Amino acid sequence: MPLQRIDMVQGRTEAQRRAIADAVHRALVESIGVPGDDRFQVVTEHPRADFVVTPAYLGVRYENPILVQLTISVGRTTEQKQQLYRRMVELLEAAGVRRSDAIVNLVEVARDDWSFGDGIAHYAPGADARR
Amino acid sequence: MPLQRIDMVQGRTEAQRRAIADAVHRALVESIGVPGDDRFQVVTEHPRADFVVTPAYLGVRYENPILVQLTISVGRTTEQKQQLYRRMVELLEAAGVRRSDAIVNLVEVARDDWSFGDGIAHYAPGADARR
Amino acid sequence: MPLQRIDMVQGRTEAQRRAIADAVHRALVESIGVPGDDRFQVVTEHPRADFVVTPAYLGVRYENPILVQLTISVGRTTEQKQQLYRRMVELLEAAGVRRSDAIVNLVEVARDDWSFGDGIAHYAPGADARR
Repeated sequence: MPLQRIDMVQGRTEAQRRAIADAVHRALVESIGVPGDDRFQVVTEHPRADFVVTPAYLGVRYENPILVQLTISVGRTTEQKQQLYRRMVELLEAAGVRRSDAIVNLVEVARDDWSFGDGIAHYAPGADARR
Repeated sequence: MPLQRIDMVQGRTEAQRRAIADAVHRALVESIGVPGDDRFQVVTEHPRADFVVTPAYLGVRYENPILVQLTISVGRTTEQKQQLYRRMVELLEAAGVRRSDAIVNLVEVARDDWSFGDGIAHYAPGADARR
Repeated sequence: MPLQRIDMVQGRTEAQRRAIADAVHRALVESIGVPGDDRFQVVTEHPRADFVVTPAYLGVRYENPILVQLTISVGRTTEQKQQLYRRMVELLEAAGVRRSDAIVNLVEVARDDWSFGDGIAHYAPGADARR
């Protein structure tokens, strides 16, 4: 599972926010094989004063940026991460987010760092994954 | 310290949210030896449209799920993590959260990644831990 | 890039929150060489009931604490992290935050875990960093 946090300034419609969430999830599915039903997303809007993003960084200029922070199991290669970033901007662009406004950060965790409910460490090697 | 983030859909009462926070913290204390006064929690409610969780994953069905993301010092074994997950669902159930609705993610960090105030890296090996 | 999350109880003015954000970012710039334009911050206010922090921990007493969680590329030494914490409390104090109320947590990630827009893994070794 990735746990997907998507932060942005207030002002987009509910439909726009949902299209953004859809795009982020679909990028994970299409680029690095996340299961379609492995979807856990928190979208948060912020007052403009509390969402402080540089006007530009490394030559990328921001207008209405979104911050996508994905906590994800360890094990993807740099190439897979690059594929994820590329696919995500394509899909986000179709959802109304400029390619330059799609900022992504991954946080990798171990497989035993997840419990999807019922107190089970579903991804841990060994006994209780299917009890 | 764990830094405990608990996210959920709007609608629970303040007392219900506090009972959930109590349960999450107590599970850390009882299962993996977190000190009782090592408590740093952020509970956030979200509009339903912005909290997008799959109806089911790995056979677990969700009704009103909560996402518990715990940033925690590295070093717990898989067995300890499993004990944490098991105790947490027990305590959360008593707080009104279905066992299947308790989704947990750990993010492990180094001991020198914490400062509990005063500019001190309290858990870092060496000089300034008790200055 | 660090991705900077700053959480606190509701009640500070917009100017106070901005001064806090300025202080956190300036500490990163001055202590560990983060570029001035590498600034990505999310400040979030919470109802008091949903921001549960111990009255004291390890001898540090809290009155109106802020939680600063910084996701940052791996590679800083313990000494650098200590410099960061020390400088941050100095600057936060000037922004109206008691030294004891400045709680900091770092989450280290790999260099290929960042995309600053355009689908590019800017910090990854190799081909597409400057395409």
